[in-house]
Amino acid sequence: MTTSRRDFAKLAAIGLAANSLSSIPLLAQERKVGYCIIGLGRIADHHMRGIAQSSTSRVTALVSGHHDKAERIAAQYNVPKSSIYSYEDMDRIRNNKDIDAVIVCLPNSMHAEYTARSAKAGKHVLCEKPMCISVPEAEQMIAACKTANVKLMIAYRLHYEPITLKTIKLIRDGALGTVEAIQSANGFNIARGEWRSTHALGGGGPLMDVGIYSLNATRYLTGEEPGQFTAVATTPDHDGRFDGVEENLSWTMRFPSGVLAGCVTTYGAPMPGYYKVFGSKGWLEVGSFGYQNLRLQASYRAASGSAPTTIDETNNEPDPQQFVRQIDHFSHCIRDNRTPDTPGEEGLKDMQHIQSIYKAAGITLG
Amino acid sequence: MTTSRRDFAKLAAIGLAANSLSSIPLLAQERKVGYCIIGLGRIADHHMRGIAQSSTSRVTALVSGHHDKAERIAAQYNVPKSSIYSYEDMDRIRNNKDIDAVIVCLPNSMHAEYTARSAKAGKHVLCEKPMCISVPEAEQMIAACKTANVKLMIAYRLHYEPITLKTIKLIRDGALGTVEAIQSANGFNIARGEWRSTHALGGGGPLMDVGIYSLNATRYLTGEEPGQFTAVATTPDHDGRFDGVEENLSWTMRFPSGVLAGCVTTYGAPMPGYYKVFGSKGWLEVGSFGYQNLRLQASYRAASGSAPTTIDETNNEPDPQQFVRQIDHFSHCIRDNRTPDTPGEEGLKDMQHIQSIYKAAGITLG
Repeated sequence: MTTSRRDFAKLAAIGLAANSLSSIPLLAQERKVGYCIIGLGRIADHHMRGIAQSSTSRVTALVSGHHDKAERIAAQYNVPKSSIYSYEDMDRIRNNKDIDAVIVCLPNSMHAEYTARSAKAGKHVLCEKPMCISVPEAEQMIAACKTANVKLMIAYRLHYEPITLKTIKLIRDGALGTVEAIQSANGFNIARGEWRSTHALGGGGPLMDVGIYSLNATRYLTGEEPGQFTAVATTPDHDGRFDGVEENLSWTMRFPSGVLAGCVTTYGAPMPGYYKVFGSKGWLEVGSFGYQNLRLQASYRAASGSAPTTIDETNNEPDPQQFVRQIDHFSHCIRDNRTPDTPGEEGLKDMQHIQSIYKAAGITLG
Repeated sequence: MTTSRRDFAKLAAIGLAANSLSSIPLLAQERKVGYCIIGLGRIADHHMRGIAQSSTSRVTALVSGHHDKAERIAAQYNVPKSSIYSYEDMDRIRNNKDIDAVIVCLPNSMHAEYTARSAKAGKHVLCEKPMCISVPEAEQMIAACKTANVKLMIAYRLHYEPITLKTIKLIRDGALGTVEAIQSANGFNIARGEWRSTHALGGGGPLMDVGIYSLNATRYLTGEEPGQFTAVATTPDHDGRFDGVEENLSWTMRFPSGVLAGCVTTYGAPMPGYYKVFGSKGWLEVGSFGYQNLRLQASYRAASGSAPTTIDETNNEPDPQQFVRQIDHFSHCIRDNRTPDTPGEEGLKDMQHIQSIYKAAGITLG
C-alpha cells in the first residue's frame, strides 16, 4: 500500500498523487490549519473525526442551527463557545483569525450560498459532493472563490484513497490493456423523511447523492470526459418517500476512446457500491465506495496465454482515515498555495454530466 | 439443491419447473429419443456429451460438411456411417426412423433454414441461441414447426439449471422485496477469424452471441417483458476482427413494474458473466453464465433491522450436466407431447428485444 517515489512521479503526472504528501508531516512549529464546520450532520461528524486525527488540521469553529448540539460538539473538539455561529450570523467568521477554511456539510441546495458567503468572508472552502444542484451554481461558486482569492476543493475523498489510486495506476500503466467497458452501481434504501429525497434540498435523487460516485469513478478510471449519454429513470415505490426525485436511474456514458460505462443508482434498495473495469487484457473490480475497507480484485494477462496476474487487496485503514488523507491534502494546498487535486472545476464537470444524464432521462435539473 | 413437491408446484406455476422432471427416469423399456446433430462445432460437442450421459436420449445421426470429422465423431457415439449426412442431402433424414429430433448447432445465420428443413423432414427441433438473426426469421421458424406439427425448443440451458431456478424462486417468493434494478454483463475477447464476429454469419455482435444471456436473465428474473430501451455501441479496436458488428454494447431496459436493467457485452475484453438483482429487502448476485459452477450469493432481510439472511451456494455439477438436464427436458416433452419451457416463442421474444436494443443503438438488425 506504500507509494514509491517513482509511483509518485507517475501519479503526479496524472494529477492524482498529492495525497501521498499526507504522510509528510508538517514542521512541528507550523500552525495547524483551522476549519469551521458548516452544518453538523452525519458527514460533518466524519470530517471532524478525521481532522481530530490529522497532524495538519484542527476544528476551530462551528456553524449550526442547533445551539445545544453545537455546544456539545464544541466541547468535544475544544472549540471556544465564542466560535459557534448561527446561519444568520456566520458572515462574522471573517473576523475569526483561527478560521482558515470552512467545510460545507449542508444539504446540496445550500452548498452554493454558503460557499459564496464563506469565500466573501475570506475563507478557503472544502465543499461536500455534490458540489451544488446546477451547472450555473457550480460556475458561480468557482467564480466567487476566484474573486475572493480563496481555494475551493470538492470533497471527493476517494481521490485520496490508496486502493483507488492503485486502481487508477494499474489502468494507466496498461495492465488491463485497452479499456472497453465499465459497470458501476451505488445506492441504498432511503428512510422516510430524509432531506436527500426532496427536490428542494437534494436538488435531485440518488444520482446527485450516491450515483455521483459511479459517475466520478468512470472519469478517474478512464481519464476522459463522457460525450454521449442515455438514461432511464423510474419510481416504482409510490410510498411518499420521493418528493420530485427519481427512485432508480440507469444510464450509459460513451467516452471519446469508445469506452462504454453503464451505471445504476437507487434510493429503493440496498445496492453496495462497486465498479468493474473490463479491458482487453483483463478485468478489475473495486467495492465499495464506503468510508473503509475498499477492496480491489483483479485478473489480467500480460499476453494472451500467459499466466494471469491476480490481485485481491483491501485497504484496512479504519474510518475516518479517508477524511484524514483528504483534509491533509487540503491543508497542504492551503499552506503551500497549491490547487487541490479535486478543485471546483472537478465538481463542475460532474454537475455538467449529471445535467446531461438527467436530460437524457427527461428530468430537468435545478 | 433438491426441489420439493411444493417447490415444484410453485415453479410449475411460473413455467420453470419441467426440468425437475429430468430426475424421473424413463421406463426401462422406453426407447431413447434419437437426435441428429447438425453442425459439429464446439457447442455440438457439449450437446453430444450431455446426450451420452442422459438416460433419455441418444445421438443417432450427424450432419456435417467435414466427412472425416463426422466419421470420427460417429464412431465415438455409435452412430452408423449410413446416418452421416452432408448439408446438401440432409433432407433425407426424413427417412431415418432413428431420428426423432435435430439439434441445430450451426452459425446463427443458418438456424432458420436448417430448422425449417428439419421440420419439413418431420423432426422436432432443438435450436441453439440466438434462435436466428431477425424477427421475421424467428416467426417463420415457429410457423414452419407448427405447420409440420413438430416441437421447437430454443437451447436456453440455464432455464434448466438449479442455481438459476433457485434464484428465480427467491425473487418470486419475495425474498428481495420489490425488485428495483438489475445489472448484468457477459462478454469475452474474441479471437481473429471467428464466424461470430462477422455480420454475415453471426447476424450481429456480442449482443446476439453472449449479451443474450443478460437479456434473457432480466426476463426470467423479473417475469416481465421490457418495454423501453436505450443503447450505445462502440468499436474501439480497429484491428479487423469486427466485420460489421459492434465490439461493445451497453444498454438499459425499463420493465413495466419500473425495474431498470443495465447490461453490457463485449467482444473486446474478458468479461465474466454475472447478474446482480437489487430489491427493497436485499440483493443477490449470480455468476457466471457458464457450463458449470454457477454461484449464487445473496443478502436480504425479512424486515428493516432484522438479521440478514445470507446465501453463498455453488452448483458443483460438472459440465455437461446442464446439457443432460436440457436434453432430458426436451426428450420428455417429445415423449409426453408437452410444450418445452423454452419454446420458439421464448426465442422470438429475445429476438424482438434484440431488435429494439440494436435500433436504440442505431444498428439495423438482419
